[in-house]
Amino acid sequence: MKHRLFTPGPTPLPERVLRRMGSPLIHHRTDEFRRTMDHLHHRLQWLFDTSGPVVPLTSSGTGAMEATVVNLFSPGDCVITVNGGKFGERWTRLAETFGINPQEILVPWGTALQPEQLREALHGAKDPRGVLLTHSETSTGTAIDLKAIAAMVRKEFPGTLLCVDGITSVGALELRFDAWGIDACVTGSQKGLMTPPGVAFVALSERARKAIELSTSRRMYFDLRRALAVLNSNDTPWTPAITLLQGVDEALDMMYEEGLENIWARHARHAKAARNGLAALGLKLFSQAPSNALTAAWLPESVVWKELHQTLQTRFGITVAGGQGDYAGKILRISHLGYYDDLDMVTVVAALERALILSGFPATPGEGISAVQKSLSEIENTRTP
Amino acid sequence: MKHRLFTPGPTPLPERVLRRMGSPLIHHRTDEFRRTMDHLHHRLQWLFDTSGPVVPLTSSGTGAMEATVVNLFSPGDCVITVNGGKFGERWTRLAETFGINPQEILVPWGTALQPEQLREALHGAKDPRGVLLTHSETSTGTAIDLKAIAAMVRKEFPGTLLCVDGITSVGALELRFDAWGIDACVTGSQKGLMTPPGVAFVALSERARKAIELSTSRRMYFDLRRALAVLNSNDTPWTPAITLLQGVDEALDMMYEEGLENIWARHARHAKAARNGLAALGLKLFSQAPSNALTAAWLPESVVWKELHQTLQTRFGITVAGGQGDYAGKILRISHLGYYDDLDMVTVVAALERALILSGFPATPGEGISAVQKSLSEIENTRTP
Repeated sequence: MKHRLFTPGPTPLPERVLRRMGSPLIHHRTDEFRRTMDHLHHRLQWLFDTSGPVVPLTSSGTGAMEATVVNLFSPGDCVITVNGGKFGERWTRLAETFGINPQEILVPWGTALQPEQLREALHGAKDPRGVLLTHSETSTGTAIDLKAIAAMVRKEFPGTLLCVDGITSVGALELRFDAWGIDACVTGSQKGLMTPPGVAFVALSERARKAIELSTSRRMYFDLRRALAVLNSNDTPWTPAITLLQGVDEALDMMYEEGLENIWARHARHAKAARNGLAALGLKLFSQAPSNALTAAWLPESVVWKELHQTLQTRFGITVAGGQGDYAGKILRISHLGYYDDLDMVTVVAALERALILSGFPATPGEGISAVQKSLSEIENTRTP
Repeated sequence: MKHRLFTPGPTPLPERVLRRMGSPLIHHRTDEFRRTMDHLHHRLQWLFDTSGPVVPLTSSGTGAMEATVVNLFSPGDCVITVNGGKFGERWTRLAETFGINPQEILVPWGTALQPEQLREALHGAKDPRGVLLTHSETSTGTAIDLKAIAAMVRKEFPGTLLCVDGITSVGALELRFDAWGIDACVTGSQKGLMTPPGVAFVALSERARKAIELSTSRRMYFDLRRALAVLNSNDTPWTPAITLLQGVDEALDMMYEEGLENIWARHARHAKAARNGLAALGLKLFSQAPSNALTAAWLPESVVWKELHQTLQTRFGITVAGGQGDYAGKILRISHLGYYDDLDMVTVVAALERALILSGFPATPGEGISAVQKSLSEIENTRTP
């Protein structure tokens, strides 16, 4: 059976990335590998739109979030965390774990933090050193207006460190690290970067680098001082995940060829098409501020998630994600992250349409995919002749 | 040019491992992946010779060492660390970093810790909670008699946690986790496990698991409580490095087919052959207690390391390792770890022989490899008819 992944991480691997990862293994303390790391770093700077350092880590995205917390802050510091889903909550847990005092803004799942909420929390907190938030919340398919929020923080709280979980936004949604004044932004390999999981990255501002020098938090594997000290010589403090970094390097070449604005536009087009397709099938969207990285929708009451998931997998070879936490069994999530083209959006909605019909849900064959197709076709109408 | 890695990590990848890592990427929260994790865990138990849990981590070996330190001990605890090289020293640094008080036994590079030295240190320390040592020190090519040391610790200091860096010993040297009474043993994917770097493992005794519950150290990404809580359901707390775990799973199948005793015997045979070959070339061995995982030898005074390394790489496609720390430029290190057969040992010494001659060193063509061949042939003479 042909298998197709539509999960918001891991995401499908391009053939080029697979081939590159299968090339002969090279030792990491060689000029050859350092040339790869140098090229990779330039591409990462392009991706984050920054002239500063982007540190690679051998870990999941959570490891890079921990690195941010233990390097930028010290036990006793106060930070604002924004919990609008499973991954926002993780910032709170990380802060608590490392003795940092999190003042948490609880945002209902599926809604987006507003600049006013954050302003109020920052005014209400005693000496808040940082803000830890999620650009695109994977558990709910919700994106915040990071540009507006960053502008508010930079203008009104210039010394506060703005730390962004960009794990499902980098390479999918517009994000301009330097221009927007972000201080730390993390991402992982298995999302927009189209590579298997296992490496993560942290972009750091000058303000963040100064904070790193002052932090009294205990850290060694994730000590960014060690990583920054050898970054210019294209080295890593510990043995890196060589093949995964080669994969990311190849993926970034593909992304560079496509162009960042084109990639963002593609994700927007696919998300819109998926939203229209699901609506045409009669599904209600979950998020009130949907992210272009993935689309979450409520399952019809008559549909049992486990059965639908099973049908999608065994009958059509399609893997989509279900809900997390309180929403397990209640929502489904379809990824637009990474290596997808227009036809893939037709494919996933086609499978969903048929699986829903098989589950007894009254959908009409062709209705969902026609809406997808119509939405995708709008690009032809907007092209200059 | 044909490239051959003879570095003590990363080590060469078997074709089967490469192919397995290139199979379609599967999502980690699926039954299919859980079946792989279940199979992998049984194989890991076989490898460590333990009936207890072996936790996978997405990190380098250093990450697994950190996980050991922050989970088994608490700030203020006293531990004995054994520093006989770069990696032994890492235990000391890790302990210090996390507020644990290391009483360090300094062992001259190239010599092995003796049980008496450890006994004395344990008697001299105030309430030592653990011993942190290196089975096979990669920076010097030296192995300790872990069986004898473990026997002494278990008999005389039954409550002390014995933590072993097995990064270049697991799958190369005899190591029996349960029978010898080890409490924590870490290894990495890119050594005896014949897979690219990026995942590491920690085997844990019941004593260790009790200590983990009591530790007050701050940890989240490396929190082994979280990992142990989901291990039985073949899950991981964070997104794992899926393709690398598949690679390790395949490598372990190959190892299982060969048999552990056979693998240990092969490493012993190759190390002996390399030692004999280097001696026949006129090189002096570095270690007084050589490990079967790799062979370290002094460079002849007339030979410049950088030039020799360059010749080996550009003329013969061979990568060996140089010295680390004070011994950079003074020694060379040849790996026997993982995917090597008898003929590979002839190959590496053949290349070294020619590179040495090219550098002006007075070696006789064929002398080194004849000694290798003679040593390897002994197996034929010792076989029962």
